Amino acid sequence: MKTIQIKAPYLIFLGSESRQTYAKTGMGLVQWRRELCAGQLSLSETAIDLGLEPLSLQQAVDAGIQSLVIGTAFVGGGMPTQWIDILVEATSLGLDIVAGVHQRLNDIPELKRAAEKAGTELIDVRVPPEELPVGTGKKRTGKRLLMVGTDCAVGKKYTALALEKAMKAAGMNVDFRASGQTGIMIAGQGIPIDAVISDFLSGAAELLSPDNTDDHWDIIEGQGSIFHPGYSAVSLGLLMGSQPDAFIVCHEAGRKHISGWNDFALPAIKDVIERTVLLGKQTNPAIECIGVSINTSSLSPVERDDYLSQLSQRLKLPCFDPLRDGIQAVIKILTNN
Amino acid sequence: MKTIQIKAPYLIFLGSESRQTYAKTGMGLVQWRRELCAGQLSLSETAIDLGLEPLSLQQAVDAGIQSLVIGTAFVGGGMPTQWIDILVEATSLGLDIVAGVHQRLNDIPELKRAAEKAGTELIDVRVPPEELPVGTGKKRTGKRLLMVGTDCAVGKKYTALALEKAMKAAGMNVDFRASGQTGIMIAGQGIPIDAVISDFLSGAAELLSPDNTDDHWDIIEGQGSIFHPGYSAVSLGLLMGSQPDAFIVCHEAGRKHISGWNDFALPAIKDVIERTVLLGKQTNPAIECIGVSINTSSLSPVERDDYLSQLSQRLKLPCFDPLRDGIQAVIKILTNN
Repeated sequence: MKTIQIKAPYLIFLGSESRQTYAKTGMGLVQWRRELCAGQLSLSETAIDLGLEPLSLQQAVDAGIQSLVIGTAFVGGGMPTQWIDILVEATSLGLDIVAGVHQRLNDIPELKRAAEKAGTELIDVRVPPEELPVGTGKKRTGKRLLMVGTDCAVGKKYTALALEKAMKAAGMNVDFRASGQTGIMIAGQGIPIDAVISDFLSGAAELLSPDNTDDHWDIIEGQGSIFHPGYSAVSLGLLMGSQPDAFIVCHEAGRKHISGWNDFALPAIKDVIERTVLLGKQTNPAIECIGVSINTSSLSPVERDDYLSQLSQRLKLPCFDPLRDGIQAVIKILTNN
Repeated sequence: MKTIQIKAPYLIFLGSESRQTYAKTGMGLVQWRRELCAGQLSLSETAIDLGLEPLSLQQAVDAGIQSLVIGTAFVGGGMPTQWIDILVEATSLGLDIVAGVHQRLNDIPELKRAAEKAGTELIDVRVPPEELPVGTGKKRTGKRLLMVGTDCAVGKKYTALALEKAMKAAGMNVDFRASGQTGIMIAGQGIPIDAVISDFLSGAAELLSPDNTDDHWDIIEGQGSIFHPGYSAVSLGLLMGSQPDAFIVCHEAGRKHISGWNDFALPAIKDVIERTVLLGKQTNPAIECIGVSINTSSLSPVERDDYLSQLSQRLKLPCFDPLRDGIQAVIKILTNN
């Protein structure tokens, strides 16, 4: 049993996309894993430039690139024919194809045939591995830090990646563990936890952060919120299986309701901390909250300083916006541990 | 979007099975839904007799039977060839085939072909419906009573079915809602909650107990335990989506550890009550525990009386063994509500 595994280095495919919001995957890869991105391929001169070397498919193969990663989305319907032609050629040349788009790669017959013939892989990061275990609850070696949220889309992935980067810079032994599709592309491995069959949820989370050395930290990307009327089970399965020693609550300043579920007030950060400790204790009695990561983009600089210092005083925890303040407050706690 | 739906009446197929423990499904059907079981078909004179009229496939069709239900298990490997021949003939005669066995019906090519030709359905009660919604958390009309457990296999299904029967006998408007495979066969509908993709867990639970009249009770079969290191997410998703007004804790007297997870002590009934209320409040603030159902088969009659009366005093709730005491204590509470 294993997680999704993507072979580096990558050729990032951008289609003809000129809008940044549609090329988030490609931009995230360059932001967080520049060293794995060996080239870019686009179909138009007006397409986004990620600042990578433009390579043809043959040049990519000659340069030792292993995977073509689709770094952008396509809107509506099926995948454009022009894309399919490129992917078929890429896989015939020996590249794996990696995507997290709506249409599954294996559902495109000509691409599937070409990959079977070439012996390459079509890796759909929305599809979990086939054989997953049931959670055992058994303690694993090494240390784990989980992001938990007051809601979806509050900066869990960003905080985890920023932490991994800062911890590496501080000389710590650390890995980012991806539980969602964009994270998996960035990490080059992982499991899309929300697509796992319920019975295997905590087992998948256990597989995601396996035994490790005593000084090693897994920084685990969180999903949803344990208060979420739609996704709480995903969050609980991830919490149970991750057995985190520590967690960071992620929140967006000013958000009042669960996004898209407007009958539900956003839970208070204090309540998220208490409930995470209560539920997490079942598989790790030592679980504790070590900080609060806030997206303060809706606040003015003055409001922001007031908000963070008041929150920090009230919770007696480091409260920070990783985009603006960096993440040194957490590094300090982790290195003192 | 809909739950699994099985057409009655049924012909129960028993193969050559002579051991009761392997024919639990057939026996459960006769115990709880005798009125839907119109005949039995076995392959041997020594097979279990459910007390139904023995019918050939043609006689079953002539009698208006709609579905052949596999009422027994087969051990190891694939389905016996003799069974497959019978199922192909049955489906060619126009019967739906219903099973919860390890091998999926749709994975047997000759059976799949025969069903497609005849326009009949192959219903595998281990496979959830294809299109399931995300949970909305929106309040539904009608009332709901959920079974929750200290563990797996502690009598949740039995308690729910006994309650449905007693409530019907008391003239109440009630439906058993099945969340597991045997329950689905008995109810003739339902969703195997533990096989649902995590993102849709609470949505599936919402679908399972839809809007109803104000006087109507859904008695919802529970799954797992919110303290279970493997299956807690399943239990939470079911709790969130069920939005129960009331719940009954099911427990087996004498069980000390989570079965198969021996590092984990069984949670105290009191703790299961408190945590179910805490978590269930998110989608139904009025949630309350109305009783405790105990499997007392491991106790002597004297021990049993002591156990139940002490538990009842301590928890200030009706505590009963539905198999021995019946379920009138709960009926009384529900009719006074």
